[in-house]
Amino acid sequence: MSIGSTIAIDAMGGDFGPEVTIPASLQCLKDNVNLRLIFVGNETVIREHLEAQGHKDSKRIRIQHASQKVEMDDSPAKVLRTKKDSSMRVAINLVRSGEADACVSAGNTGALMATARFVLKMIPGIDRPAIISTLPSVFGHTHVLDLGANVDSSAEHLFQFGVMGSELVKAIDGIDHPTLGLLNIGEEDMKGNEQVKMAAQLFENSDLNYIGFVEGTALNAGSTKVDLIVTDGFVGNVALKAIEGAAKMIGYALKEAFNKNLLTKLTALVVMPVLSNFKQRIDPRLYNGATFLGLRGTVIKSHGGADVVAFANAVKIAEVEIAQDIPKKISERVQQVLAERKH
Amino acid sequence: MSIGSTIAIDAMGGDFGPEVTIPASLQCLKDNVNLRLIFVGNETVIREHLEAQGHKDSKRIRIQHASQKVEMDDSPAKVLRTKKDSSMRVAINLVRSGEADACVSAGNTGALMATARFVLKMIPGIDRPAIISTLPSVFGHTHVLDLGANVDSSAEHLFQFGVMGSELVKAIDGIDHPTLGLLNIGEEDMKGNEQVKMAAQLFENSDLNYIGFVEGTALNAGSTKVDLIVTDGFVGNVALKAIEGAAKMIGYALKEAFNKNLLTKLTALVVMPVLSNFKQRIDPRLYNGATFLGLRGTVIKSHGGADVVAFANAVKIAEVEIAQDIPKKISERVQQVLAERKH
Repeated sequence: MSIGSTIAIDAMGGDFGPEVTIPASLQCLKDNVNLRLIFVGNETVIREHLEAQGHKDSKRIRIQHASQKVEMDDSPAKVLRTKKDSSMRVAINLVRSGEADACVSAGNTGALMATARFVLKMIPGIDRPAIISTLPSVFGHTHVLDLGANVDSSAEHLFQFGVMGSELVKAIDGIDHPTLGLLNIGEEDMKGNEQVKMAAQLFENSDLNYIGFVEGTALNAGSTKVDLIVTDGFVGNVALKAIEGAAKMIGYALKEAFNKNLLTKLTALVVMPVLSNFKQRIDPRLYNGATFLGLRGTVIKSHGGADVVAFANAVKIAEVEIAQDIPKKISERVQQVLAERKH
Repeated sequence: MSIGSTIAIDAMGGDFGPEVTIPASLQCLKDNVNLRLIFVGNETVIREHLEAQGHKDSKRIRIQHASQKVEMDDSPAKVLRTKKDSSMRVAINLVRSGEADACVSAGNTGALMATARFVLKMIPGIDRPAIISTLPSVFGHTHVLDLGANVDSSAEHLFQFGVMGSELVKAIDGIDHPTLGLLNIGEEDMKGNEQVKMAAQLFENSDLNYIGFVEGTALNAGSTKVDLIVTDGFVGNVALKAIEGAAKMIGYALKEAFNKNLLTKLTALVVMPVLSNFKQRIDPRLYNGATFLGLRGTVIKSHGGADVVAFANAVKIAEVEIAQDIPKKISERVQQVLAERKH
């Protein structure tokens, strides 16, 4: 971690608000002595929660009052127009002003994206922000973008996602030339839609470590390790949620099998330690926290339904990305790519 | 089953050819006394495999020689042009001539689709064929289309998929008004791309039991039961394979957890019956067999890597669809929808 990074926490965001955001963030504060936090939201409520957590005054915590709260079903347009003093907006303002190095919110994705884009602005050369996150895979993990910020991405947009994603993977995983796959419905050249076929050409002509088309299986269990998978946000979002649903169904079926009768219930007791080891390996909470790429600042989106463990993971992702100064790295890389194109 | 249905089996198709297709089909012949089979492919090879299975001459089996074989990586255009005597093409010809009521193939999807479309032609009023299959869900199962026949489906195409899919679900599951969801990246009206938003309007103005947008989680584990999920083939194919990959990864992680040490290995022995009960519930082999909808004939595509259990399942799907005469039902329904539009 860099010395003295400061994270603005949208304390009111998410399904559970300060009940989750505050204990989770305090846990991170405990784990990293160089971290400072700014809790943004209703000051009275935040104070109550800090006290409930037995928290004493600390130089490493600041409260920034914000009178409004973004609801999970507020439209982005409405939020931009009428919620200028929301905890979400004020937290992002703190990133723009430089008082915070990053902001973490479990609030409404659309509103967070629109506000972040409006307040922080795009990195020059990048047309649209994209959402990137990691998925567990048989090889460890895979980074995937876009997970829902965009629909109808053009080949150029897909290429920009690849440039941004590669920089993030390089910095976070410490890989010099991360492998990049383009999500498609087959591995052969003739497969796919026009955008994907044209994006493939852009990647082939770039110095990115492009390995070709990959299929949906590659997200979790491809035949070779892919560090980064690029796709349109519609496809990426559906795939991400399909995986969530599959894991949920398999969990149910497993539970059902162990609940069948007394004998299977006894078996469940014996097998519990093994199953919890297994669960830990694919615990979605440990993959919580998606990054908005392409903005002039670091914004991490936590799942709205995140619990303390999950939200803390999102804060930890912010810590890592601050240390690596991802927006700066992307900006430098994009200028380089643009310069190469002009030649 | 209808009395005396006949299925043409592309005996040479798939990764394993007659090694799988013949024993699997013979199993179905044994299970259904009203079934007749036409094995299409190299006559000598087919005879050898029938003999190896201890099969005696039967009035219920016919061999139709075909001198060529479609390879898994043959392009559809090449197959149409140069493989007119392939086991795949001849099997589909038998459906057109009425000698067979359906055809089952584990061959190359693109080639099978192109050949089926060329030989059988589309149902009037339907622009493009679509691939439909079922996925296990927490509520039992869900039918999903399109799974990869189309990319860039328009709103009208999505609507046609819904009309066709609803007829299939009605007939197969015996549900009068199957619920239909449109796959999207959120449930709110403002979400999604133009095609999906426009398709939603078409569904809302129809008499289909349209329930609105559903997210990727709904494929396996939605909050309410959805009988049929409609999407573009690019999205559907990626989602299907993402689910495949997730299940594979979870399987690996489970195996890993039980293989950790001697104690966990002993636990595995105790838990085996419970796990096999669980596996059966979500066994992908029991979901093998996708239907090409929109053609004037029944064509079932088996997974290329299908084993005997899986291929037999695809043949059983063909038996059910023959009994229900799905192409006829779709054709009647489409004429009705078209007539309503003209009013």
